[in-house]
Amino acid sequence: MTAPAESSPYRILDCESLRGLIAELEEVRARLGGRPEEWQVREVGDGNLNLVFIVEGPRGSVCVKQALPYLRAAGPSWPMSPERAFFEHAYYAAVAPYVGALIPRIYRYDAGLYCTVMERLSPHIILRQGLIAGRRYPNLARDIGEYVARASFFTSDLAWPFERKMEGMALFARNQPPVRITVDLIFADPYFASPRNRHTSPQLDGLVAELRGDGPLKAAAARFGQKFLSEVQALVHGDLHSGSVMVTEADTRVIDPEFAFYGPIGFDLGAFFGNLLLSWYSQPGHATPGDDRHAYQAWILEQARIFWETFRGRFLALWSEHGQGDAFPAALFAEPQDAAALQSARSAFVDSLLADMLGFGACKMIRRILGFAHVIDFDAIRDADLRADCEAGALAMARTLLTHPEQFHSVGDVLDAVPRMARRA
Amino acid sequence: MTAPAESSPYRILDCESLRGLIAELEEVRARLGGRPEEWQVREVGDGNLNLVFIVEGPRGSVCVKQALPYLRAAGPSWPMSPERAFFEHAYYAAVAPYVGALIPRIYRYDAGLYCTVMERLSPHIILRQGLIAGRRYPNLARDIGEYVARASFFTSDLAWPFERKMEGMALFARNQPPVRITVDLIFADPYFASPRNRHTSPQLDGLVAELRGDGPLKAAAARFGQKFLSEVQALVHGDLHSGSVMVTEADTRVIDPEFAFYGPIGFDLGAFFGNLLLSWYSQPGHATPGDDRHAYQAWILEQARIFWETFRGRFLALWSEHGQGDAFPAALFAEPQDAAALQSARSAFVDSLLADMLGFGACKMIRRILGFAHVIDFDAIRDADLRADCEAGALAMARTLLTHPEQFHSVGDVLDAVPRMARRA
Repeated sequence: MTAPAESSPYRILDCESLRGLIAELEEVRARLGGRPEEWQVREVGDGNLNLVFIVEGPRGSVCVKQALPYLRAAGPSWPMSPERAFFEHAYYAAVAPYVGALIPRIYRYDAGLYCTVMERLSPHIILRQGLIAGRRYPNLARDIGEYVARASFFTSDLAWPFERKMEGMALFARNQPPVRITVDLIFADPYFASPRNRHTSPQLDGLVAELRGDGPLKAAAARFGQKFLSEVQALVHGDLHSGSVMVTEADTRVIDPEFAFYGPIGFDLGAFFGNLLLSWYSQPGHATPGDDRHAYQAWILEQARIFWETFRGRFLALWSEHGQGDAFPAALFAEPQDAAALQSARSAFVDSLLADMLGFGACKMIRRILGFAHVIDFDAIRDADLRADCEAGALAMARTLLTHPEQFHSVGDVLDAVPRMARRA
Repeated sequence: MTAPAESSPYRILDCESLRGLIAELEEVRARLGGRPEEWQVREVGDGNLNLVFIVEGPRGSVCVKQALPYLRAAGPSWPMSPERAFFEHAYYAAVAPYVGALIPRIYRYDAGLYCTVMERLSPHIILRQGLIAGRRYPNLARDIGEYVARASFFTSDLAWPFERKMEGMALFARNQPPVRITVDLIFADPYFASPRNRHTSPQLDGLVAELRGDGPLKAAAARFGQKFLSEVQALVHGDLHSGSVMVTEADTRVIDPEFAFYGPIGFDLGAFFGNLLLSWYSQPGHATPGDDRHAYQAWILEQARIFWETFRGRFLALWSEHGQGDAFPAALFAEPQDAAALQSARSAFVDSLLADMLGFGACKMIRRILGFAHVIDFDAIRDADLRADCEAGALAMARTLLTHPEQFHSVGDVLDAVPRMARRA
């Protein structure tokens, strides 16, 4: 990381000041080619939190992300430390040795400007946009399953002496503002009449009132909120929805890990899985006369299955090959007759991650329909009645996942249930 | 805490250098009365880790505890940072507002000497000695149940915004050497042929071999080892056995929290509960012609029940009265119709603490019989055959707790099973 002496005092960048900044970075300058005046600089950020610039030169291009000192989606009235950029950088550094080319290359982190100069991913698009457009990505589910398996296994106590995770916990325990957002916007606000909430109204008014009156649902959501705060299994991305993945047909990249902290592995699994289900339920809203999206929905469910199965298989394989940590110490299971018990314990642990994925995934689904930050999958559906029907299906599914976990022993059980919960066939 | 400028450079204290040190502390000097030459200073430490001095003056006395830079029980060949004294002090400071007079008063912490000047507890004795002597302490079980309830509830996310626990986690994540000891000596070594282990031999050789070949037992112990490292529920004492409690008939104090860290509440519960069970199984070794200790064993089991029931009742009451934290946020359960679901969730959480208490307690029992650090409850039994019989009963109980948790739905189930596992009636 950049030493303090090299860092710049914080100021919000614009296209011109960014051009000046980049001009001083020799390596990046060489990558862009030409003279600074020739570079095209534009701000393209559309997320909730940051400025994002693309800088194009005659030879190449880079992406520059700067953390703002407030929540962009809310404006300066909702202040938020830009220090999350430091943790984004720390997360990338921690997982880079394990996840290979599934994250962007980082060229420069400026600690004073909370600003990262990184690989421009092109012609990648945000996965969420691809799912709305009905595009298929043959490697996606396997890549993200592999990603979560490797990033979480190698930052857990299964892989290393516990001191390593404890050092990481001490560091990431300072990344509190994003955790505060998650605690409030995912695990609290959606379940009562918070002024930050919105939903498709009046269509969903009755259903929303019913959910907010459903004690067992709220208790289940609260239990996952407690898990989120108290199960320190691994370094997690913290916001791994389909807006944090960029794709081409051949390539997959995970971006935006600024919510990173040490927490439950199921939180990352659930973010991705839950957003696939949201996409499934949103598809009728994107149907056209030539494409009812039914085949695409089947493809989505298949990706959900591949995602989980890849994660499960890879995680267990890594555990077998690299289980040298303090959790389940190898010295205890050195004899051939120990293999069955260890195998069974590993399966039980991975089963618990499945249950966590479903619970966290359900919480993620609900907050996107009842809470502050919605998803374009639904918001892009102009017909409010149709949108409400799509959302109602997703809510019914999420509610069942939270209140009847005993119905879901496998990912197959989940995928069978998904179509049954849809409001329209 | 003492500011760095006031702290002394580290040196191992002896009676004379301690006298000089105390002479400079005006408040402590006043407490002792008289002139330093008149004070009686003696070293009384008998634990595994520290020097402990008693300083007596004409007016009063104090206790001084200094952390050594190695494990006292092993000698300088097993180095260990004295920084644990800092965390002991930090733990006392964190829980003091909640646990009242259940900890000693602290007069002075010297950061440079890793040395604490504190209330001398007199005529208190170490609880473990009292249990060996067959003494009864009418308040003990209720006091420790109350202590664990208050210390854990008020350092959890149930009581406060999560940022408070996260700050504490960041601090205590530096207290790694004691955690390393726990990980190695409780959750690993006892289950394989580590050179640090010992057991009553040859009497227990067969049973020890059987336990070390019991895959499901090892998998269960490993699962609790993983929980120990990854369930960050509250600030825990970390070593709350009957050697960390001082008692009179009327008064109870918890001492020696240098293993403190943020972890599972059940770890503290299990330490105390498991050591009560160890005491129960050791009683035949302390029987005399006039006292077969059967009545005392019944008293011990009753204390185990009172301990758990007090903890459970107080923890739930605190949750009802002070549940203002981010876990199970009050805003979600504001309506009368939410009460039943919240009640049920609270019961489920406390039930999970019971299960954790039993699992951790069992691990604590096993390590004291097969591992590095034993307990005087058994070691004081000179007849090795009798000692082995006592230990075998405790091992059978611990093994059943770990491998058949489904048999124990209540603390009553446990207490019923305890006598059945004894090798001799």
